[in-house]
Amino acid sequence: MTDRRLAQGEETRRRIADAALVAAAVDGLEGVTVGGLARTLGMSKAGVFAHFGSKEALQVAVVEHALERVQGRLFGPISELPPGVPRLRAFLHAYLADIADEETPGGCFFTAAGSEFDRRPGAVRDRLAGIQRSWYAFAAGDLRASQRARSGSADEGPPDADQVAFEVVALAQAASLAYQLLGAPEVLDRARHAVDRRLDAIEQRHAAAGSAPADPAA
Amino acid sequence: MTDRRLAQGEETRRRIADAALVAAAVDGLEGVTVGGLARTLGMSKAGVFAHFGSKEALQVAVVEHALERVQGRLFGPISELPPGVPRLRAFLHAYLADIADEETPGGCFFTAAGSEFDRRPGAVRDRLAGIQRSWYAFAAGDLRASQRARSGSADEGPPDADQVAFEVVALAQAASLAYQLLGAPEVLDRARHAVDRRLDAIEQRHAAAGSAPADPAA
Repeated sequence: MTDRRLAQGEETRRRIADAALVAAAVDGLEGVTVGGLARTLGMSKAGVFAHFGSKEALQVAVVEHALERVQGRLFGPISELPPGVPRLRAFLHAYLADIADEETPGGCFFTAAGSEFDRRPGAVRDRLAGIQRSWYAFAAGDLRASQRARSGSADEGPPDADQVAFEVVALAQAASLAYQLLGAPEVLDRARHAVDRRLDAIEQRHAAAGSAPADPAA
Repeated sequence: MTDRRLAQGEETRRRIADAALVAAAVDGLEGVTVGGLARTLGMSKAGVFAHFGSKEALQVAVVEHALERVQGRLFGPISELPPGVPRLRAFLHAYLADIADEETPGGCFFTAAGSEFDRRPGAVRDRLAGIQRSWYAFAAGDLRASQRARSGSADEGPPDADQVAFEVVALAQAASLAYQLLGAPEVLDRARHAVDRRLDAIEQRHAAAGSAPADPAA
């Protein structure tokens, strides 16, 4: 009975977080209200509130829920790939395709919420900042993994992995914002082209490593 | 007397827009309220409201006010430079320096407000979308101007001017968002480095135009 109650509570939390994520895509995370969620779900406000305890805890739960869904949608399909530039490229292509997916409106949840909370200190901003750092670390890790695979050594990889990681994440996030604002699919094509060009240059440099000086354009 | 009244009205509108811009840097443009502005300025709510007539008109006025200030702060210093890559580079450097300027907190107003309003159809979003398009057009125009100056012809310039314009604007806007969220000055350095590398490649290609095939990395 206790297990069943726990499972039901978890299921209700999930339904609330789902509805909150849909609402946040339109009104922003701060615009999600307990009253609005209660109306959408046919629950009492007290019922919604009881599952989280505070507005901030609800917002953090929505961030975690969004992350879980992105893990499934974007990282799931690439989970078989080893760390490296091809995996990073596949992730960025999937991210850009996802922005235009009508089933997940609002573009990149984390980019939008990050912009919304960047001047609001607290648990929500801290979590979003941690996720932003984790994108950079993921991209830089894949760049270093490709470098190590080429050189056969366990060194730290190219000194500019953090630089390139910033660039490709920046292009993808800016494309999400511009697509939302302008509704112009060409910004996604441009971001994809720029990301491909940047990663192509890295792969060419890795392929040439040891046999020629580094490509100054890479 | 009528002139003086008009001037006073204009001055009051400007004071209100100034205060609204400061408030928007913290609470977002949608979070700016007539009541909050009235308290800040020691005016009545009706007094504030009378100068704009609607919340949307107030928000559009804040966007115009932000644009006017950016024109002075970022475009003023480069107004002597002719259109071209050096002017675009100077603008982007100034934009990135401005993000870290403590006198203008909140990063790029237009990037933040664009993210906030991208799912809210109306006059505010339309204006912000127009401004976003104007950044791309400005950057692409400067890229084409440099190309024309090299080739001496009035042709359309490099076919990828729109592509490069998207990239450099994307890097700058993403840097504004990341700096606000993470408070990490290195994202500004990374954006500056990426912008310089991209514009260097373009300038090298322009310099080589006619004497060698286009650099495939540019």
